[in-house]
Order: sequence, then structure tokens, then C-alpha cells
Amino acid sequence: MNNIIRTGICQMQVGKEKEKNIARAYTMIKKACTKENRLVILPEMFNCPYSAEMFPDYAESYPHGPTFKMLSQAAREEAVYLVGGSVPELEDGRVYNTSFVFGPTGELLGKHQKLHLFDVDLEGGLSFHESNTLAYGKQITVIKTEIGTFGVAVCYDIRFPELIRLMTLAGAELIIIPAAFNMKTGPAHWELLFKARAIDNQVFLVGAAPARNIDASYVSYGNSIVVDPWGRTIARADEKETILHAEINLSIIKKVRNEFPLLKQRRTDLYG
Amino acid sequence: MNNIIRTGICQMQVGKEKEKNIARAYTMIKKACTKENRLVILPEMFNCPYSAEMFPDYAESYPHGPTFKMLSQAAREEAVYLVGGSVPELEDGRVYNTSFVFGPTGELLGKHQKLHLFDVDLEGGLSFHESNTLAYGKQITVIKTEIGTFGVAVCYDIRFPELIRLMTLAGAELIIIPAAFNMKTGPAHWELLFKARAIDNQVFLVGAAPARNIDASYVSYGNSIVVDPWGRTIARADEKETILHAEINLSIIKKVRNEFPLLKQRRTDLYG
Repeated sequence: MNNIIRTGICQMQVGKEKEKNIARAYTMIKKACTKENRLVILPEMFNCPYSAEMFPDYAESYPHGPTFKMLSQAAREEAVYLVGGSVPELEDGRVYNTSFVFGPTGELLGKHQKLHLFDVDLEGGLSFHESNTLAYGKQITVIKTEIGTFGVAVCYDIRFPELIRLMTLAGAELIIIPAAFNMKTGPAHWELLFKARAIDNQVFLVGAAPARNIDASYVSYGNSIVVDPWGRTIARADEKETILHAEINLSIIKKVRNEFPLLKQRRTDLYG
Repeated sequence: MNNIIRTGICQMQVGKEKEKNIARAYTMIKKACTKENRLVILPEMFNCPYSAEMFPDYAESYPHGPTFKMLSQAAREEAVYLVGGSVPELEDGRVYNTSFVFGPTGELLGKHQKLHLFDVDLEGGLSFHESNTLAYGKQITVIKTEIGTFGVAVCYDIRFPELIRLMTLAGAELIIIPAAFNMKTGPAHWELLFKARAIDNQVFLVGAAPARNIDASYVSYGNSIVVDPWGRTIARADEKETILHAEINLSIIKKVRNEFPLLKQRRTDLYG
């Protein structure tokens, strides 16, 4: 049995024009599929500038929005698993920061609505309040596929170890996080958080970021990353637009868990 | 109000002779108190080689064991808070890996019996099974003092984010972890785990390690460390015997939590 998932992460440059963003994502997905990748991943808010005020204007309802049609079509054309980064989703009159996941026949496998909204007030002036325009997701997301079991979360969700643990206990082997850290949180915490979650849960972590755009109101750190269950960084981009390729060997999970049976050693009698 | 805790961490060289270890610890505590430190910390298993087979022979019962008498006396003489690393403790016929904490009048403030025992089988031959000779602790340990609220855990306990979160929710501002990582886990995970726990919980973390002894059956990584709530390493030793000094400014906790209110943003409705 082949335990290797060949993956392409599209660290795309996001601009203001939605149609251009959708076209650019499509082009990058196709390009990511030239290397026999079975799993393609887009970054957070790939069709919309990262701005809470803009999310409602860019929001689409599934399945009729043009972004969802493009994602389903691309997955089907290339017969790949596609984690569609995230986009503003309109559902029942509310807007969510949602990651849609499609399978190789273009079918929707699941979606994750961001659970922990990014509401922060940093010293030096950077404030961001997603909750001004977004609603909170209501459930964790773990998707079983033929090539592996994926946990999906979005950006700020990674700061909550409880969530990553729950996805792991639900069977996730590879946790995929479309995310846009900034120029303060990125250098300080980005790689460290991905490594820590991987080490604690003995799973693979993927962070898929937009390329850095220094003209944007919110400047993404970039640095898309893949970390293995021992906390080794096996692939990492810089800040520029690129496709980051990685070979994810799921058999490492078992090896690491045999050495350190952390998940069996939890003191659930005390955690309450 | 003064929010700074001046701290001395005794990264001591541990040998085979228990009496010499106790004497050496006493000397280092006294030396750590020459700098107006109010908090002194010893490493894991400072009176005993780190060997599961040896723990029962070195174990003492509180309060009559010579190690406990030394610790209480040293705390009283210097009027400091003293986290007595850890030692093999005999209680009700069982042996624990226990950290005893004394206050400035020599009084026992609390103790932590290691909750997660180090049972691992590493590739390359290193196996360690604390549970061969040790019993499991039964509760988490948070100690409120006049200078701050301390969480105390021992070594492998740090690998379980649930525990550090519980201590934080119980009010811990400074989490103190006597610990002996080895030459495989140290370079791979030591600093990263301390930083991740500090970032996630927005508290200070202290790791107090024995100095490296390459003649021992288990070789300690050393590298005692202090990390602030933003994940910055504010003090770090190398592998040699030393006293590591740090100024722990508790007011940073509030500042970081004002910027990122992580603890208020937890989705307890989902964590179950």
C-alpha cells in the first residue's frame, strides 16, 4: 500500500479583483497538478482581500457561486483532492470564513467554517475584528478519503490546541490549515505553532498561506509549510508566489507513535 | 506593585552519590541567592541518577528524609521560594517522581507527583520505562504565593497540552518544569515545547534541567530555559553546570492577553 501523498500548495498572490483571483487560483491548481500531486491546497481567503469589511461583498452561496464551480471543476478535471483554501461563504444570511473540500470527481467532501475568529488589537496599531462581519463555525471537520484522513481548520483555529487534539482523536492524519499570519505573528509564531501541533499530536500539519503583498491592508507572512509528526519541516516556501511541493509519508505517524505513545498516555481521568 | 520575580535556576551536575548530590544542591541554592533572587529552582531527579532501577533505592519519605530537610532549611535560611526539582518520593509504599515546593519560612507549600510517566522505546536503542518502578501522580499542582501563582509539573508532563492548559485555567502565571530531556528529544523538541506552551497559554514557562553528564546512562540535554508569554526565550543555559538567572516580569502576561485574548476565545462549547 502506498502511504505517500504527493501534495502541491498554491501560495498565490491575492488581489482586489475577485474574478482575477478565481482565474489565478484555477491556473495555479492546474500547474500544481503537473507533478502527479493527488492533493492540492489553496490559501485562506484566496478570492478576496483579507479585510473584514470586504468579506460580505465577496461572499458566495454554495453551490452556485463562481468560486465553488471553479473548484469543483478543477478537482474533477485533474482528478485530485482539493482543499479550496477559504472564501467568504454566505449561508442562511450569515457570512463565514469557510474552507470547501472537493474530491476527484468534483464532489463536495466537506467544509470547515472557521471556529475561532481573529479578533485582536496589537500594540502598534494593527487591529482586526473578523467578528464584525463573520459568524462562528459550529463544528470540527475531519474528512476521510481514500488517500488519508484530513482535518481541516482555518488560520486562527491553530492557536487552540484543543481543536487540533480533537481532530487527531477523530482520526485526522494530516491537518490542513489555510492561513494568513501577518508580519508580527508570522516571524514570532508561524513555524513554531505548526511544529508544536505536529509534535503533540504526531500528525502531519500543512499551512497554506497567500503570497506576501506589501500593498495590501493586511500583509500575509507567506511561508507555506509542511511539518511531519516529529516536528521536522519537510517543505517551506518563502514569501513569494509559488507552488510548494511535498511528499507526505503517512507511515511516519505509526513509527513516531510506536516510539512515543503519547496519545495512549494521556491522563483523561484528570483532564475533565 | 512589583511584578518582577528574580529567579535562579540551578542546572546542577548530578552524580551517583546521594549525599554528595544533596550537598551540591544546597551549595548551589545558596549561591543562587546571592543575586536577590526570590525564587530558586532545582532540576529533575537532582539527588539520584536518572535511572528507573535506582529510584526506589534513593527514595525518601516526607518529612524525615535528608533531602527534604535540606530543602526546607535552605528555603528558610535564604527566605526564598524553592522548587526542589524532583526526587524519588516514597509514599504509602509507592515511589513517585515528585517536586516539593517550600516557602520562605521553610514550610511545605505543595508537591507535584509526575502525572505522565516516561515510557518510550526510541529507535536506536534508548528505552526508558519509568512505570517499571514509579507510580502515577493523581492531581495537578498550582500553588498560590505572595510573589505569583506557580504551576508545577515534571518533564514528560510538558508533552501534554491538556495539563498546561488546566494549570493556566487554575490561575498559574509561571509554570515550572524540572525536566531532563535527552540528546534525541532535547535538540528536537525542548525549546519548542516550552515556547509553544507559553504562547498557547500566555504564561511564563521555566525548564530546569540537570547539567549534561556524558558518563551517565541517561544523558541530560541541559539547556535550562525561561520563556515569556509571547514565546521569547529570555534566558537559556548551555549544557554545563551553571546557575541561570532570569527576571520574570509578570505584567507581560496582561499585556499579551490584552492583544490576543486567547483564553476568552476558546470554544468550550465544542471541546466537550
